[in-house]
Amino acid sequence: MELNEALAVLEATQRKLYAYNAASSALFLDGDTVAPRDTAEGRGVALGILAGERRRIMTSPELKETLAVLEEHKDELDLPHARQAEELGRSVRQLTRIPAEEYMAYAQLTSEAGSVWKRAKEQSDFQLFRPYLEKLVDYNRKFAGYYDPAKAPYDALLNEYERGVDMAYLDNFFSALREKLVPLIRAVGEKPQPDVGFLHRRYPVERQREFSDYLMQVLDLDRAHCGIGETEHPFTMNFNSRDVRITTHYYENDLASSMYSVIHEGGHARYELDVDPAWDYTVLAGGVSMGVHESQSRFYENIIGRSRPFIEAIYPKVQAFFPEQLGDVTAEQFWRAVNKAEPSLIRTEADELTYSLHVMVRYEIEKALIGGTLAVKDVPETWNRLYKEYLGVDVPDDAHGCLQDSHWSGGSFGYFPSYALGSAYGAQMLANMEKDMDVWGPVARGDLSHVTAWLAEKVHKYGGLLTPAQVVQNACGVFDPVYYTDYLTKKYTELYGL
Amino acid sequence: MELNEALAVLEATQRKLYAYNAASSALFLDGDTVAPRDTAEGRGVALGILAGERRRIMTSPELKETLAVLEEHKDELDLPHARQAEELGRSVRQLTRIPAEEYMAYAQLTSEAGSVWKRAKEQSDFQLFRPYLEKLVDYNRKFAGYYDPAKAPYDALLNEYERGVDMAYLDNFFSALREKLVPLIRAVGEKPQPDVGFLHRRYPVERQREFSDYLMQVLDLDRAHCGIGETEHPFTMNFNSRDVRITTHYYENDLASSMYSVIHEGGHARYELDVDPAWDYTVLAGGVSMGVHESQSRFYENIIGRSRPFIEAIYPKVQAFFPEQLGDVTAEQFWRAVNKAEPSLIRTEADELTYSLHVMVRYEIEKALIGGTLAVKDVPETWNRLYKEYLGVDVPDDAHGCLQDSHWSGGSFGYFPSYALGSAYGAQMLANMEKDMDVWGPVARGDLSHVTAWLAEKVHKYGGLLTPAQVVQNACGVFDPVYYTDYLTKKYTELYGL
Repeated sequence: MELNEALAVLEATQRKLYAYNAASSALFLDGDTVAPRDTAEGRGVALGILAGERRRIMTSPELKETLAVLEEHKDELDLPHARQAEELGRSVRQLTRIPAEEYMAYAQLTSEAGSVWKRAKEQSDFQLFRPYLEKLVDYNRKFAGYYDPAKAPYDALLNEYERGVDMAYLDNFFSALREKLVPLIRAVGEKPQPDVGFLHRRYPVERQREFSDYLMQVLDLDRAHCGIGETEHPFTMNFNSRDVRITTHYYENDLASSMYSVIHEGGHARYELDVDPAWDYTVLAGGVSMGVHESQSRFYENIIGRSRPFIEAIYPKVQAFFPEQLGDVTAEQFWRAVNKAEPSLIRTEADELTYSLHVMVRYEIEKALIGGTLAVKDVPETWNRLYKEYLGVDVPDDAHGCLQDSHWSGGSFGYFPSYALGSAYGAQMLANMEKDMDVWGPVARGDLSHVTAWLAEKVHKYGGLLTPAQVVQNACGVFDPVYYTDYLTKKYTELYGL
Repeated sequence: MELNEALAVLEATQRKLYAYNAASSALFLDGDTVAPRDTAEGRGVALGILAGERRRIMTSPELKETLAVLEEHKDELDLPHARQAEELGRSVRQLTRIPAEEYMAYAQLTSEAGSVWKRAKEQSDFQLFRPYLEKLVDYNRKFAGYYDPAKAPYDALLNEYERGVDMAYLDNFFSALREKLVPLIRAVGEKPQPDVGFLHRRYPVERQREFSDYLMQVLDLDRAHCGIGETEHPFTMNFNSRDVRITTHYYENDLASSMYSVIHEGGHARYELDVDPAWDYTVLAGGVSMGVHESQSRFYENIIGRSRPFIEAIYPKVQAFFPEQLGDVTAEQFWRAVNKAEPSLIRTEADELTYSLHVMVRYEIEKALIGGTLAVKDVPETWNRLYKEYLGVDVPDDAHGCLQDSHWSGGSFGYFPSYALGSAYGAQMLANMEKDMDVWGPVARGDLSHVTAWLAEKVHKYGGLLTPAQVVQNACGVFDPVYYTDYLTKKYTELYGL
């Protein structure tokens, strides 16, 4: 095979993968938004077949030969083609390392485990889920060896979610966080809490929908290319850089919930929409990693969206949307309320300050599970002990404890740390941004264009052209969690008058 | 290849085709309902690639061999497998008869023609669309030869939409209609028209949405398996027999528009939901043909939905939904208003009585275009002349004339007659149904279960297990359009006191 031919196969293969991803995304999106209740079966059949077709393409002898030819001619390739070949090769190796029959059995297992977990959570019955979790852990330990037999199993899994991240890196990271955050949280806990009652007045859903439109406008999300839907759990889905969807969930008695979901998912969408369209229909399309993606969503949600200047800028508009509910509330009261920090049980509802401690519990447990030093049967006890130790809270039952997240039931071990890493990356980006320009002046006027332009230039536009580590280097420099702990210390010192 | 192996390939192939159809449907549905405005391009890329993948499967040497083996063992197959092999073989032959490069060029042409037609209609400029229509006609004459060189070109095209239907059949059919309907329409035209003003009072969309839920309940559409959405033009889409979607379009100043869209699409959905689930994921899934499908949608919409007993049954509920708008209107007035018959310009807005004359105009023009006796440049003039002749109306411009329908821009020639055939099938089904049981007693109590059970038994359950002609034979006996003209004569004689 000639190089030219290999490049043609490379392009055609990536376009096919795009089409299969778009198809699956459309089916998923439909299933999560408008599909009638009892229609999952037929969708599952279609998704399973499409996954098989995708696997066929990824494991075809033609693609194998193509990647070999491209590897041979590595030095002649420009950066985009080199990165495409590298990323595609990586996915192919990952897929083909797992024997087909194990891959199928595992797909079956995660599908079953998903519904069993759901039931177990509803009934707060860990024993129901336990045999599935045991199998899931076993499979993942085995798969880790397929991914990279030279690495410790959990390191191999971590590397799948956030390339270059391992236990040494995370142990450092989390111990730096723990050292600073545990005393900070304790100090906050001794101060009086702000009033948050007004956030739970009656906020009609129809009005909240209009408010979402306004927030998307503030984030400069072009509605011709970015839609918003409603789902049980908010998420962002990208078809390509010109077609992104976010979702939210409205609660009539909770304004902040959907407001910050829209800003959070809006941050993900901002990233996707800013990726260079040149990478559309290739494996370089879209955000580069979970960690970098979370750095952007949490940047908009917390660093900007919960900042005093931002809230002061938009608050007159917020009041205009909800005059009856917020007529007697000042911007400062609102700012304090949406930043209330308090140890709690549920990760997805945790505040900015305590959030990474929730992640830390999961990290410690995954490390021990995959490392083989913790048995699945002991997960609930360990979970409850660590929540007491890190957050000082008593877990009443497993539904509010180790059964709260869906990740493990889907076979994701090593995914959680990205959430905390993203937050820390964001804080360091802020520090660099503040060196480069006046961040808060424009934000105080409700203008996020400077912030977005900086992030687009340093992070967004690359998509997968750079590796996650290169993007972090580009926007953060040498990563140091001290920026994150300093940021939180400064913010909560001001908020709580420490 | 052994027979067993061939049967396995047959099953696997049909499941794959199901998955590709489901994927394309999900992308289409998204595009028509919730997708942001400027996202068609990426969806088009995905749909094009999926169509290519589907073509690859349909034209694979393995499938060709499989179909040959099944043909050899034809007499050993049970009916479902025999029909599956027959239908799949037919699609494969159809697809492979068109040379690949013409197929691609034609796909490109219809895609372009679609947007040009849209613009031409907006600007009422036939000359803009004319070169595309010329190419579309040329392609279809050529394709007709590929489909069946032994047939006249238009017969070959008709056969693609409604197997067994040809010009001889339709000439008979339409001349029988014309002979009875033209004088009937003239007689109606001499009578005073009912008041329809109350249908155009202000009907809030939110309330109409609730009314749609009620109508779906009346049609016994299980909402766990049948969703409703909103689109510019209403349609029905089926993923499988357990997952069907209908759409409607609400106009605040027109209650009947969405009401009868919901009943019409609900009729399509009723058919899809009643098909034996055994045919899911095979080529026998879903309604058997356009004509039979329209017979069902129009049965529910017109024969039942616009009948006096049905309206009297549901009218108290209709008034309860819209007390301010309909408090001063009786059931009889409502019945008369939704059955107002009057020659008009636009097919999709035509009443039950004049509808088939709109179809007849298109049939005559297509017959002449594909037959080569009418030049594309003369279409507007011919269109306007036939509308004057059949319906007695003057066409003011091409937007309200020959540019009104999208069908030709999508390359559909021979599709329109199914609409009229379906109406006629339905009337004959009613006659047979009335012989078998008391139709109108239960309907007058708002109970459609007997009607639906009869249709499910005679039509719906078969899906594609029987051919369209067999289904028509099953439910109608020997098809005779006199049932349709008798039905219309009786109905409009009562309505207008002829």
